[in-house]
Parts: sequence; structure tokens; C-alpha cells
Amino acid sequence: LGAQRLNEVFSCFVFYGVLLVVKMYAVAIITGQVRLRKKAFANPEDAMRRGGVQYHKEDPDVERCRRAHRNDLENILPFLFLGAVYSLTGPSLFVARLHFFIVFVARVVHTVAYLLALRAPTRSVAYTIGQMPCASMALQVLFSVITYA
Amino acid sequence: LGAQRLNEVFSCFVFYGVLLVVKMYAVAIITGQVRLRKKAFANPEDAMRRGGVQYHKEDPDVERCRRAHRNDLENILPFLFLGAVYSLTGPSLFVARLHFFIVFVARVVHTVAYLLALRAPTRSVAYTIGQMPCASMALQVLFSVITYA
Amino acid sequence: LGAQRLNEVFSCFVFYGVLLVVKMYAVAIITGQVRLRKKAFANPEDAMRRGGVQYHKEDPDVERCRRAHRNDLENILPFLFLGAVYSLTGPSLFVARLHFFIVFVARVVHTVAYLLALRAPTRSVAYTIGQMPCASMALQVLFSVITYA
Repeated sequence: LGAQRLNEVFSCFVFYGVLLVVKMYAVAIITGQVRLRKKAFANPEDAMRRGGVQYHKEDPDVERCRRAHRNDLENILPFLFLGAVYSLTGPSLFVARLHFFIVFVARVVHTVAYLLALRAPTRSVAYTIGQMPCASMALQVLFSVITYA
Repeated sequence: LGAQRLNEVFSCFVFYGVLLVVKMYAVAIITGQVRLRKKAFANPEDAMRRGGVQYHKEDPDVERCRRAHRNDLENILPFLFLGAVYSLTGPSLFVARLHFFIVFVARVVHTVAYLLALRAPTRSVAYTIGQMPCASMALQVLFSVITYA
Repeated sequence: LGAQRLNEVFSCFVFYGVLLVVKMYAVAIITGQVRLRKKAFANPEDAMRRGGVQYHKEDPDVERCRRAHRNDLENILPFLFLGAVYSLTGPSLFVARLHFFIVFVARVVHTVAYLLALRAPTRSVAYTIGQMPCASMALQVLFSVITYA
């Protein structure tokens, strides 16, 4: 029974974790599309292929995409670790799912708010809400393994 | 028998995953060497130690290394998660190894193409090929856990 | 007995891994505080909310925080993978704990040295010391799974 719940919780984590990875991939694809549309390439060899070295330049819309992506690296990637080890601590499926679901929705809202430049503090609020289950998981995991420090 | 295959697939994933981490470390070391050779340091305290604050500057070769490294963060780190959970879904060793091997080779080619500024679209093609097994793994994992959403 | 030691080693890894994630979160919070204090925001919509578009600007102290954070992404995130798979190779608890503890202390020193701009090479020495257990873990893991390549 314990093994079954662990499996359910871990599978639930994997579901939202993989969805968030797919969401990150979407930001990468959008960045590439914005580079093509604005003709703003990070590398001279790319610019040469797309019309000339003058397109090796920065662009504010591309930089916005890159900031959204970097924020994902800073927050989604640690979640992929925290969620996995939190699943192993034996939480109830309901509470665990709540943690994962809040992180998932908050990070989707964060990305939308970033890419569409929604009015502040939409993005920051989404960021903060998404970090709360992460802080909760971090604390619970720390307490469960503190005797092994 | 099922446990044995799972162990074989996971070990195969770990092999290529660790090799890719070592590859990322190599990019970090190369970046440091280029900083020393071009005398271009990100921090004033480093520049002071290497001859003066005038060496606190940006350099196009250093920036190229940093872009290659950042692209690794965006793609290799999610693979370390995707490959692990994909291994747990019980794929055949042959198919799983093919996924991991393509990611590995594509990311090595991506790094070489980036650092040597090979003619476009060499780097982008390597990037796209490396993302295909990742997309395949993401989809397979999602299908296998979708009932736990 | 083998399962118990594996559990002890893995729990020890989880303890230091989660502490390092918390340390990364601390850098993110510090970055936000420095942005508010120096009035230097990455996004126009944030600057508008804090007094005007003129505060959409770069700041050397903010950039320093961001470099510290990025270095964490480059090194702590791969450790979260390496430490996990190294734990599965069955090392002694003493040796494993030594690896994790050195990484932890070195990364804390690295962050302090970065944020306070301590004299070079304090930061680089901390970086190098922290990478040594990581290289050791990478090699041990590679040897333990090389037959599955």
C-alpha cells in the first residue's frame, strides 16, 4: 500500500514535471521564432545565413524571451529535483498533487505574463506563488532527512 | 527480469547523462581558458589580479562560449530529468539506448559547431536532432503517467 | 543492509542537495532586493511600477548577483544529478558524506565571495574545490556503468 501511494505521488510529480519541461521547450521555440521575425541573431554565422552580418544584433523582444527562459532554468529545474525527493518522503496524494499543480499553473502564468509583458506585478505574483510550494517541499524534505546530515 | 531491464536502461541513461555533464564541465573550462587568453574578465576583482581593471570587459569569443554553455543548461539539464523518468517507463534497451545516444552525439556536435563557429545551419541542425529524442521521451512519459494527472 | 546504506547515503545527498537549492533561492531573493535598492529593473513594466521607465536599466551590483546565480545553475544543478546517481553506486557513507559536504561548503563560500566581491582568487578557489568532488563522482559513476554504454 505504501509503495502504491509512493508510485501515485511520484507519477503525479512526473506528469507536471514533464509538462513544465515541455513548457520550457515552447519558450525556446518562441525565442527562435522571434529571432527570425525581428531578424536579430546571437551569432554572426546565423546572421550571415539570414541576409547579412547587420542582423547580428540584440532585440528587446528576444531579450524578453531569454529572460523568461532563464527564469525557468532558475525555478523549474530545481523543482524537478525538489518534487522528486519530496515524493519519496511519503506525502498524501492530495497534498502532493496540490503542491505540483500550484507550481505548474504559477509557472505557466509567469511565462504568459513575461512574454506578453502584462502589467506589474502579475509576473512577480505568479513567481512568488510558484515558489511557495517549492519552499514547502524543501522544508518538508529537510526535516525528513535531517538526521542523515 | 523486468527489474534487470530497468536497471540496464537506467545504467545506459546514467552513462550518457554523466558524459554530457562532463562535456558541460569542458565548456566551463574552455570559457576560463579563453578569458585568460583574451584577457577579458567578468569581474573587476579578477581583472585586477590579471593586470588591471581595463581587463574587466566583454569579448566576443568569451560570449560565444557562454552562449554554448547556456544552451547546454537549457537542453542537457532537462534531459537529465527526462531520461531518468523515461527509463522508469520500461522501454526496450535498444530503443532507449538509441534515444540517449542520439542526444549525446547531437549535443557534442552542437558544442563543437558553436565553439568553432561552423557555418549555419550546422549548429541548429544538431540542436534540432538532439531535441527529437527528448520530445519523444517527453511524450512517452506523459502518456504513461497521464492517469495520475 | 545494502538497502539501508543506500538509503543513508541518498538521504545525506538529499540533505545537502536541498540546502544548496535553498541557497540558490537566497541568491534570487538577494537579487530582487538589490534591484529594489538600486532601482534597476530588467523589464520596463517593473520600472513603470517603481517610478518610471528610467529605472529600466542595468546595474553592476545586480549583474554581480546574476553572475553568482548563473554559476549556481552551471554547477549546483549538475550536482543534483551527479550526487543522486553516485549515491546509487553504493559508496561508503563516510566517503559519500565527505563528497557532498565539500560541495556544499565550497558553493556557500563561492556565493559569499561572489556577492561580497572578495579579493581574487577566493571565488575561483572555492569553485575549483567544489568541482573536485563532482569530478570524482562523475568518474566513479562512469566506471560503475561503463558496461552499459
